[in-house]
Amino acid sequence: MIFKKVTIIGVGLIGGSIGKALKSNGLAGTVVGIGHRASSIDEALRRGAIDKGTLDAVKGVAGADLVVIATPVCLIPGIAKKISCSLKKGCIVTDAGSTKAEIVGSLERIFPKGVNFVGSHPLAGSEKRGIGFAQDNLFKGSVVIMTKTKKTKKPALAKLSGFWKSLGVGRIVIKSPEEHDRIVAEISHLPHIAAAAIVNTASDKSLEFASSGFKDTTRIAASDPGIWRDICVTNRKEILKALERYEKNIARLKKLIKSGSASRLSREFERSKARREKLS
Amino acid sequence: MIFKKVTIIGVGLIGGSIGKALKSNGLAGTVVGIGHRASSIDEALRRGAIDKGTLDAVKGVAGADLVVIATPVCLIPGIAKKISCSLKKGCIVTDAGSTKAEIVGSLERIFPKGVNFVGSHPLAGSEKRGIGFAQDNLFKGSVVIMTKTKKTKKPALAKLSGFWKSLGVGRIVIKSPEEHDRIVAEISHLPHIAAAAIVNTASDKSLEFASSGFKDTTRIAASDPGIWRDICVTNRKEILKALERYEKNIARLKKLIKSGSASRLSREFERSKARREKLS
Repeated sequence: MIFKKVTIIGVGLIGGSIGKALKSNGLAGTVVGIGHRASSIDEALRRGAIDKGTLDAVKGVAGADLVVIATPVCLIPGIAKKISCSLKKGCIVTDAGSTKAEIVGSLERIFPKGVNFVGSHPLAGSEKRGIGFAQDNLFKGSVVIMTKTKKTKKPALAKLSGFWKSLGVGRIVIKSPEEHDRIVAEISHLPHIAAAAIVNTASDKSLEFASSGFKDTTRIAASDPGIWRDICVTNRKEILKALERYEKNIARLKKLIKSGSASRLSREFERSKARREKLS
Repeated sequence: MIFKKVTIIGVGLIGGSIGKALKSNGLAGTVVGIGHRASSIDEALRRGAIDKGTLDAVKGVAGADLVVIATPVCLIPGIAKKISCSLKKGCIVTDAGSTKAEIVGSLERIFPKGVNFVGSHPLAGSEKRGIGFAQDNLFKGSVVIMTKTKKTKKPALAKLSGFWKSLGVGRIVIKSPEEHDRIVAEISHLPHIAAAAIVNTASDKSLEFASSGFKDTTRIAASDPGIWRDICVTNRKEILKALERYEKNIARLKKLIKSGSASRLSREFERSKARREKLS
């Protein structure tokens, strides 16, 4: 057992899966869940994701050895401010947000000395949301990116890394918050924005003929608009950089198509084919 | 039996699947395959996709009631010129190319009176290529777009439509070549170009963290570069129109991200989610 009392704020897909993994493997003394609706707490209890639940974050984090904030990104700083004074000395706090520089910067300012914050981003989950999809093996073999800054305490980083591994995580990668944000802008946020724009470009008449290629390419456009809004707002800088490079790549392809440069078009498509095929 | 002698030029995935479907359902008297390598003819014979094979297109089409040109798009006009004089009067010719305006325009000029050309585009297949992946049920439940112009003869259109249906096609849609090209530019060519550009935008460092969302969005970037080069060359006009609208959609999202317009970003993502969810 790494932590005696673990408090999870936000018992949705990620928070619920953490609770389930902790409980089904006996990895924590008590798992406390904090929700913003009584019904979600009830469901988390019923599904065996938590031992106790409360709507009161301040009370729920008291005495916790580990607090995991697994709410939508934009709510994290507000929650941190709220719980800041009731965290016990030596407590480790992490989050599961998809963007890091803004959150880590803000939470490192909010928490007092003696509280050890380390940012986490589990690259698990799907376009599904909510406790109903939570599973105790959601993290099995997955990757978690943890952030390290000048303020990060090494023992907290090591302990939290052990925590994620105990949940089944296959690989822990340590990055600066900025590096993290650059990576996810390129492999997650850009594809989402591109997919949304593809769907919005095709006319209704054409959509009628969409086949598997179109559906695969745009599947992620069906994920939660609120989450994507928050991601765009909190990872603005890196998303804009990725979008600018993307626009240049599109413009280059457009130019080659316009001029009918067959051999150069081949080379572009050969390059993307070779790079795509490297991924399993 | 709709046609006594059917000649298929190009016995790859599409041509081979047509042959297999014809033969396994006894839909044609003889199925002749034309290839550009003896080995592909041999394999088509071995796999039961054709009854006879030849490398000589001029001889192979003699006496055919239906000729299906199932080669890469850029080879179609050259083949049409070559076979034009040896087609029997009343013969129906179709193709299976992914772009239509250029091919249909060119073939309608090439073929003499008495030869009935109707363009077809079976929306079946995958990123796989070659006779090795041919199946007699490839077209089962699929959609075929057939083209109609001022020169299209109604009896030929009806007969060819019956031919596709006999192969298991679920729905035949008749469009002008230009309408066809607009539709596929939006639902197939644009997604491919966008996927290639996404893959080429992500750095090697980031690609290491690509998960299922990235992989789905970019799967089609692994398809054959030569086919995509030909598509871009032969559907230039409609692809450029779709790309211009796409660039505007990307630019609008970029502007909203830059200005942090949370509620307008939500609306854009809500719109793409709703449109994507309409597709099964």
